Amino acid sequence: MTGPAPLAISLGDPAGVGPELIAEAWVRRDAEQLSPFFVSGGAAVLQAAAQQRGLAVPLVRITDSVEAPAAFGHGVPVLGEHEAEYRPGLPDEQGALLAIASLAQATAFAVSGKAGAIVTGPIAKSHLARHGFTQPGQTEFVADASGTAREVAVMMLAGPSLRTVPLTVHTALAQVPSLLSVDLIVRRVQVVAASLARDFGLAKPRIAVTGLNPHAGEDGRMGTEERDVIAPALELLRAAGLAVTGPHPADALFAAHERGRYDVAVCMYHDQALIPIKTLDFDQGVNVTLGLPIVRTSPDHGTAFAIAGTGVASAGATIAAIRMAGECAARRSQRIAG
Amino acid sequence: MTGPAPLAISLGDPAGVGPELIAEAWVRRDAEQLSPFFVSGGAAVLQAAAQQRGLAVPLVRITDSVEAPAAFGHGVPVLGEHEAEYRPGLPDEQGALLAIASLAQATAFAVSGKAGAIVTGPIAKSHLARHGFTQPGQTEFVADASGTAREVAVMMLAGPSLRTVPLTVHTALAQVPSLLSVDLIVRRVQVVAASLARDFGLAKPRIAVTGLNPHAGEDGRMGTEERDVIAPALELLRAAGLAVTGPHPADALFAAHERGRYDVAVCMYHDQALIPIKTLDFDQGVNVTLGLPIVRTSPDHGTAFAIAGTGVASAGATIAAIRMAGECAARRSQRIAG
Repeated sequence: MTGPAPLAISLGDPAGVGPELIAEAWVRRDAEQLSPFFVSGGAAVLQAAAQQRGLAVPLVRITDSVEAPAAFGHGVPVLGEHEAEYRPGLPDEQGALLAIASLAQATAFAVSGKAGAIVTGPIAKSHLARHGFTQPGQTEFVADASGTAREVAVMMLAGPSLRTVPLTVHTALAQVPSLLSVDLIVRRVQVVAASLARDFGLAKPRIAVTGLNPHAGEDGRMGTEERDVIAPALELLRAAGLAVTGPHPADALFAAHERGRYDVAVCMYHDQALIPIKTLDFDQGVNVTLGLPIVRTSPDHGTAFAIAGTGVASAGATIAAIRMAGECAARRSQRIAG
Repeated sequence: MTGPAPLAISLGDPAGVGPELIAEAWVRRDAEQLSPFFVSGGAAVLQAAAQQRGLAVPLVRITDSVEAPAAFGHGVPVLGEHEAEYRPGLPDEQGALLAIASLAQATAFAVSGKAGAIVTGPIAKSHLARHGFTQPGQTEFVADASGTAREVAVMMLAGPSLRTVPLTVHTALAQVPSLLSVDLIVRRVQVVAASLARDFGLAKPRIAVTGLNPHAGEDGRMGTEERDVIAPALELLRAAGLAVTGPHPADALFAAHERGRYDVAVCMYHDQALIPIKTLDFDQGVNVTLGLPIVRTSPDHGTAFAIAGTGVASAGATIAAIRMAGECAARRSQRIAG
């Protein structure tokens, strides 16, 4: 073996902040200790976005991922011919098609093992849906493309201060209580535990699970889901040998003195998991998909069309996503080698 | 007038951390620029708690609140004869009766204007309920004692980084959507606006209101409460001249770069309001009751029976609650004087 496979990065929507942030990540590759990566398509977009941001970023055309590590020192390796005009802030059909093609190609490289991981740039789902993208989001696309049942793909948000997993995600709050079940909690937490062991080097991760209600229901006085659903699920998980605690009152769980007591907080719904991450680590949040046969990360922000091309978008989350993908990929490759 | 009236502090449960934290606040009164205060009852408890914490704290018996400012430089002024033994971590009936008496007396001084504000020490509601305390909590007690309708008393959490108001509080999450109404939001936000003007010197406070659902419902795709309830309420409030924005996606609203854009965030439910405060300002959170004819603050933590008497409890929130009570009381007294 000639070293670990490089990371594949999809461009994201070319009218968003994705391309310029990839360019900046490449510029900061040494200081940030980033693994070699290549970008799927969009060479002209990358070039123009870098220039607009005032960055001197050479591109290196490659025809196979194996060329990426050697090319990476000289410029951003770009693989594939898909292209569009760079029109920051103005999403259009040509850009949507490029975003879809870039995602498909980068994913294929990861699935085939020719890339160590995929890092997906930000897309606008509703915009892409109008141009032939049939999945609800990139997570489902990657799950489908890697032959993974969608319910096994679990979203984790990771920042420098905290990791959280929302058990329910893009659903109305009123639906959340009825979506929770012992089975859902058990299956998702098992995915979380296995993924943290495999990809994050945490052999027996400490998993803190929140309650649904204020004060975790306070013995049933403010809701019964803790007693009837969450606690029984945690019993099963503990019986299976997992280091699971809870249900914890969610309001106090993310305080500084609590954060060191667990490796990941599993939360009942979207805002319960995302408020603490975005409050603490807004510019550095990484969205990791657990439970896939491949490693997939993404910066935890959208296309930010409104500020694309203005130079103000922070590359922190993109850099963190690339770094995390490299670390997870290295752990998988060591396991295979070892 | 001989200067503003002193602050009245209720002891809280004598078996909890309340007494030792009052003692520490007095020791740090100059560095923390605390207004003169007096404690209602519990002299022996205060003395023993201070000693246990290793603090040299003289007590000064007073018989009327007007003596407190002069006495404050020499020791903790204590008014009233209610007493109990100091048994940290061991709540009992005698202690519950002292806690109730201390709260009633301190509140009466504030209601009569002989105290500028009341700062309530932490109690355990279920313990006190077994010994004759008939209100659900101290907020309702103070509302009743000051002749205020309970629904007008609005809880605000305030820390160094952030102020938040939960529109619904101690209720199961499943009940929250049905409890929200245009009327509730309008009335509570009006209380918030008026109180921030009167007590916090914010003539036209900037009020950010969250959505209920992920991404504030994303145009109705994940819940309709934003469209049907929250947005119409905000329209009415704006028409009434208030500086109200929203409904905002709650996950991003508490990030550092957002927090400067509003003076208070009004949230739909308990954890949405308390997660960001406790995540950022765990040891310094103050619970302020808005909408009362008197100023009332409280440290935003419980009795912490488990660590009472061990010296590890932080006095940060108690000190912050005393300081905030003093500031609010001074603003009210200036308005009356001016």
